[in-house]
Amino acid sequence: MSFRLPQFNPPNFDGEPFTGAPNATLVEVLQDGVAPDHFHGMSIYPEYFKVNGQWVLASQSRMDGVPVLMEDGTIQILEFRNLKKGHKVVVGRTEDASEGIYVYAEGFASKDSNEDIFAFRSGRSRETAYSKDYNHLYDVLRHEKDQGYVVWVLGPATVFDYDSRIALAALIEKGYVHAILAGNAMATHDLEAGILGTALGQNTYTQESQPNGHYNHLDVINMARKAGSLEKLIKTLNLTEGVVYAALKKNIPLVLAGSIRDDGPLPTVWANVYEAQDEMRKQTKKATTLICLATQLHTIASGNMTPAYTERNGQLRPIYIYAVDVAEFALNKLRDRGSLEVTTIVANVQDFLVNVNNNLI
Amino acid sequence: MSFRLPQFNPPNFDGEPFTGAPNATLVEVLQDGVAPDHFHGMSIYPEYFKVNGQWVLASQSRMDGVPVLMEDGTIQILEFRNLKKGHKVVVGRTEDASEGIYVYAEGFASKDSNEDIFAFRSGRSRETAYSKDYNHLYDVLRHEKDQGYVVWVLGPATVFDYDSRIALAALIEKGYVHAILAGNAMATHDLEAGILGTALGQNTYTQESQPNGHYNHLDVINMARKAGSLEKLIKTLNLTEGVVYAALKKNIPLVLAGSIRDDGPLPTVWANVYEAQDEMRKQTKKATTLICLATQLHTIASGNMTPAYTERNGQLRPIYIYAVDVAEFALNKLRDRGSLEVTTIVANVQDFLVNVNNNLI
Amino acid sequence: MSFRLPQFNPPNFDGEPFTGAPNATLVEVLQDGVAPDHFHGMSIYPEYFKVNGQWVLASQSRMDGVPVLMEDGTIQILEFRNLKKGHKVVVGRTEDASEGIYVYAEGFASKDSNEDIFAFRSGRSRETAYSKDYNHLYDVLRHEKDQGYVVWVLGPATVFDYDSRIALAALIEKGYVHAILAGNAMATHDLEAGILGTALGQNTYTQESQPNGHYNHLDVINMARKAGSLEKLIKTLNLTEGVVYAALKKNIPLVLAGSIRDDGPLPTVWANVYEAQDEMRKQTKKATTLICLATQLHTIASGNMTPAYTERNGQLRPIYIYAVDVAEFALNKLRDRGSLEVTTIVANVQDFLVNVNNNLI
Amino acid sequence: MSFRLPQFNPPNFDGEPFTGAPNATLVEVLQDGVAPDHFHGMSIYPEYFKVNGQWVLASQSRMDGVPVLMEDGTIQILEFRNLKKGHKVVVGRTEDASEGIYVYAEGFASKDSNEDIFAFRSGRSRETAYSKDYNHLYDVLRHEKDQGYVVWVLGPATVFDYDSRIALAALIEKGYVHAILAGNAMATHDLEAGILGTALGQNTYTQESQPNGHYNHLDVINMARKAGSLEKLIKTLNLTEGVVYAALKKNIPLVLAGSIRDDGPLPTVWANVYEAQDEMRKQTKKATTLICLATQLHTIASGNMTPAYTERNGQLRPIYIYAVDVAEFALNKLRDRGSLEVTTIVANVQDFLVNVNNNLI
Repeated sequence: MSFRLPQFNPPNFDGEPFTGAPNATLVEVLQDGVAPDHFHGMSIYPEYFKVNGQWVLASQSRMDGVPVLMEDGTIQILEFRNLKKGHKVVVGRTEDASEGIYVYAEGFASKDSNEDIFAFRSGRSRETAYSKDYNHLYDVLRHEKDQGYVVWVLGPATVFDYDSRIALAALIEKGYVHAILAGNAMATHDLEAGILGTALGQNTYTQESQPNGHYNHLDVINMARKAGSLEKLIKTLNLTEGVVYAALKKNIPLVLAGSIRDDGPLPTVWANVYEAQDEMRKQTKKATTLICLATQLHTIASGNMTPAYTERNGQLRPIYIYAVDVAEFALNKLRDRGSLEVTTIVANVQDFLVNVNNNLI
Repeated sequence: MSFRLPQFNPPNFDGEPFTGAPNATLVEVLQDGVAPDHFHGMSIYPEYFKVNGQWVLASQSRMDGVPVLMEDGTIQILEFRNLKKGHKVVVGRTEDASEGIYVYAEGFASKDSNEDIFAFRSGRSRETAYSKDYNHLYDVLRHEKDQGYVVWVLGPATVFDYDSRIALAALIEKGYVHAILAGNAMATHDLEAGILGTALGQNTYTQESQPNGHYNHLDVINMARKAGSLEKLIKTLNLTEGVVYAALKKNIPLVLAGSIRDDGPLPTVWANVYEAQDEMRKQTKKATTLICLATQLHTIASGNMTPAYTERNGQLRPIYIYAVDVAEFALNKLRDRGSLEVTTIVANVQDFLVNVNNNLI
Repeated sequence: MSFRLPQFNPPNFDGEPFTGAPNATLVEVLQDGVAPDHFHGMSIYPEYFKVNGQWVLASQSRMDGVPVLMEDGTIQILEFRNLKKGHKVVVGRTEDASEGIYVYAEGFASKDSNEDIFAFRSGRSRETAYSKDYNHLYDVLRHEKDQGYVVWVLGPATVFDYDSRIALAALIEKGYVHAILAGNAMATHDLEAGILGTALGQNTYTQESQPNGHYNHLDVINMARKAGSLEKLIKTLNLTEGVVYAALKKNIPLVLAGSIRDDGPLPTVWANVYEAQDEMRKQTKKATTLICLATQLHTIASGNMTPAYTERNGQLRPIYIYAVDVAEFALNKLRDRGSLEVTTIVANVQDFLVNVNNNLI
Repeated sequence: MSFRLPQFNPPNFDGEPFTGAPNATLVEVLQDGVAPDHFHGMSIYPEYFKVNGQWVLASQSRMDGVPVLMEDGTIQILEFRNLKKGHKVVVGRTEDASEGIYVYAEGFASKDSNEDIFAFRSGRSRETAYSKDYNHLYDVLRHEKDQGYVVWVLGPATVFDYDSRIALAALIEKGYVHAILAGNAMATHDLEAGILGTALGQNTYTQESQPNGHYNHLDVINMARKAGSLEKLIKTLNLTEGVVYAALKKNIPLVLAGSIRDDGPLPTVWANVYEAQDEMRKQTKKATTLICLATQLHTIASGNMTPAYTERNGQLRPIYIYAVDVAEFALNKLRDRGSLEVTTIVANVQDFLVNVNNNLI
């Protein structure tokens, strides 16, 4: 049985309440970085705005972003901080076309019974049956490898273990990874494993703590800073394996966002978190699938900027979001956003990565 | 590299403090089920008692059990409740031979570097590297299949998922399971899956909740009670797969201990928990490896009655204990007992079972 | 603002679908402990059965129990195992009167806005605001002290801490506790604290581990077994404080259910878990409020046997259920039963007990 | 019984191995932000460096920071990124004076038995007895109010609840808070509670979700951005309560560090996380006690930059660190740093704040 993307059924605007609806109200920004009162905030669903009598779909949405009518007639979604004086912002907080704003949550309501199921499951826990979710994920990834854009969001636990680090690098090599969003720690410990065989000073296979091993990640960071870039570090040390290595070799965007927990940081880590958000969003704008592993900070950040759908080859399709963690609490925070397409799996990401790599050629 | 059991190096009793030590003090039980004051309680390690000038190793130990000198000259370990008037109990709470009691914790202190490592790792969490533990487990199970006795302790989550239930049944069929300790729920939901395709009313593959599915496990229990035994139920319904089926087919002991949470219960569930303990201990006495999955109640109960070593073919060898759960708290409670041979893995047991089955032929 | 119980609005049976509904179908039990096929299983809500043209409310319900028409014309709810040959069991799995069975979930749908809120909150976590829940609990307990029956379900963590053990004993002394359901461990460690100042060998105030302290709970159990009863132990040792002491002094039922984890056990612990269930249900039948602290096993067991309502002085009223634990997973398992009246609080039970005692005189 | 700080017993440098030890080796920084090879990284303990024959205590240490000999003869501890070309860095990775580096972990090894206990407790969990820890905390805070500098590290859950937000503001008003480290979310939701009565759109007392409440925090952020500063926002809206209000009124430093999860952000949030670290460290350098509540990110970040001791009025004294969370995992990550003075409490921070405020006048 081959995998099919659910069809998007666009709304039919040739009738009420659409034809009689007013144009959306636009108010100019008076102060950089400040929205007009009653600004409209985006949901994760496709939203249409009536402009000059036409219903225009917002481009590349972002939850809580602000819709701005651009000079070219498109509706772009900006964060507060990116609003500029003169931007024309849609105001109004209804969803039913009555203010020229229409939120369309049912576009992918599939006739396919397999897909229906997705919508109706309730709580997810360590006791949920995940076999079908795994199989669905394998189908999605096989499809997305060539026809999608898979963004992986990685916590450091993904590289703490010998086998899972190899599995992750293999998935990159095989083409299932199109971009990586992570922090300073994931990259640091991947390089530490590559250079010194440890993560936080502990051997990634034997679990032995190395003497003075707490220096290891600091030495790696210091080497990288001396080299000036991750590329130069890898070349200098002649590294030929690992996650960072594989990503750079395949020219995969590797966005490393800084945090106040960072040592170092490594070169290329974004010190300004809002610039980091902008870089991350460049990737989530392209994303067709998002896979978030063992990081509450980056998972929520990425999830917040990823809508339930994207435009691909002129057509709307859903974005699949998978989040994996042993902590149900972390997963529930993501599910609270209300997206039906978020699949949360309570698992150790090490098992998850080994499993996924074993099942994908 | 082939797997070798660590050698046991028995203590050399031909010198001090052993030769000059007094015989162990024995006090008679005056009241059934009540130990003498200052009774000795067993640890998880080999313990020797000086009787008539000879150091006698206690047989089939049990933590917190009471050593009793039997008429045949052996030291048997009994629970309080199994003490009878006239039993001769060792009293004394030292471990250094000074009261004729010697606790020997270093018998397996291996020269093998692989084994040394086992002893020195500290905290275990979702961020621990588990690759080596998995590989070691595969080695252990390959060895134990024919040369050991592997007791599996199973929570209901092991059968909630389609793939993991199949994996577990396959491990039984392949010979890696010599006894199963579980509760009413594991057996009930395994049978529910076999008969109705659900666990607690939810399809084990599609996760779909079946209409009136909350009746499913009750109907299964009722059918089983009507049939009178699990064997008859399976025959009546012509069941040919699943964990209970595989266990009965292979004549594997399936000890189901009752609890106050039980519906039903199924036939063969032990209503009296202390009789259940006695039945469980019959299995742990034979155990060379214990694998505990996703059940705090049964894991702690089984762990408490399993020492760090056993006698096999006249020789002492370690008992390996593995415990797997997504909840670190549950695992830490087991590790608090202090056994170096307990390996805890923070993982979803569904992934664990699929992994283990994939790696063992 | 004084606390008022929500009114129960009984269904009006003087119209359809009630008048035209058939009598409930009754089928005789043919085999002790086995229900007829298609037996009806109870929900947590009030359920009415049409018998001889009259709608009869089931007495003292229990989720998943089986309704039996007794010779006196009442409907009693029995567990499978308590069914006897000849019992007349209601069969049918509808709820809408069409088979003479009517489940009435909206009886307490209050006009009171405070109560409405209770119904609509969604997920509960460590980030939920609990101030109102605490205040509501204080109101409930002040009311129930004299006009209700408060059953406390206690895990051992309630007595591990010096202050919380005192708080719990004080709540008993002050009259806020009418029955206690617990296991061997809670009682053992309370007595250990009273006799030796420790819990599991660790001082309950200083946290110091006492030398050979792992014997402490074993010694306490052994003393109790020697004494023959908790009453005699307390008298012999002249204990004058603690939870067990306070309960016995106030003649509060203290139901201790056995489990396979038990050492000992203490005298009066129920070895047969189904007899323990019967004893527990004697208390939950009287319960108007249930407070479950830090025990997954006893909380689920008690919760399963407690419906959403009870009859008190000839009138139906809701049963309030509070469950407190630091583990959201444990709480979510209870909430899955679907009762709107379950209030779960993510908290350490030690803080909870100290708070509650400070707020109630 | 009055609270006394443990005495610091400085090492006696008038003997071996100190007198014969060489001066510490200094190597110049050749490149901004890059340490020399084999740089020394600081621990959390007092460290002395032999310079020109004298043992000099490093000032205001920071774990993993790099010791630099300044022109004034002091040793200052800098992060990699703050190293400048020409800085003279101590190299060497021993601790025993043999390279002119001496790490002194036993300076506070108290004769006081109360303090000894602190050192020997092992794992901490939801089942630990916390009464003494609470009492000790109250003693510490009463002492520190006037004679110390208490830095509070606050996650958003501290202001999600009506009572706990009031308790926290009261602690500020009463003088128990000298600095606050937090993120955008804590400040945003405190202001949202003050302005709109909600946190994330849910009433902080009734738990009712307000219609369109998901706009609330966005509106608050937008208002604040419009006002230009938190001070102006508070003045404009005439706010007179809450955590931010109390902090600004008392002129308490409020360091808000940005993260990639932020909406907005509010004015005064540090966008550059390394600048944020510098600002945070200005506070932790003064800290005598650190209290970290319900935030893994800020707790680890603050904990990492806080040593086990500080200099106050020319004398060394310990820094007390308290961390409170319901998640043991989060707490264990902090304890892994090895400081004996970290007290972790498994509790809901709402209970914790109400408790602490009730116990301090």
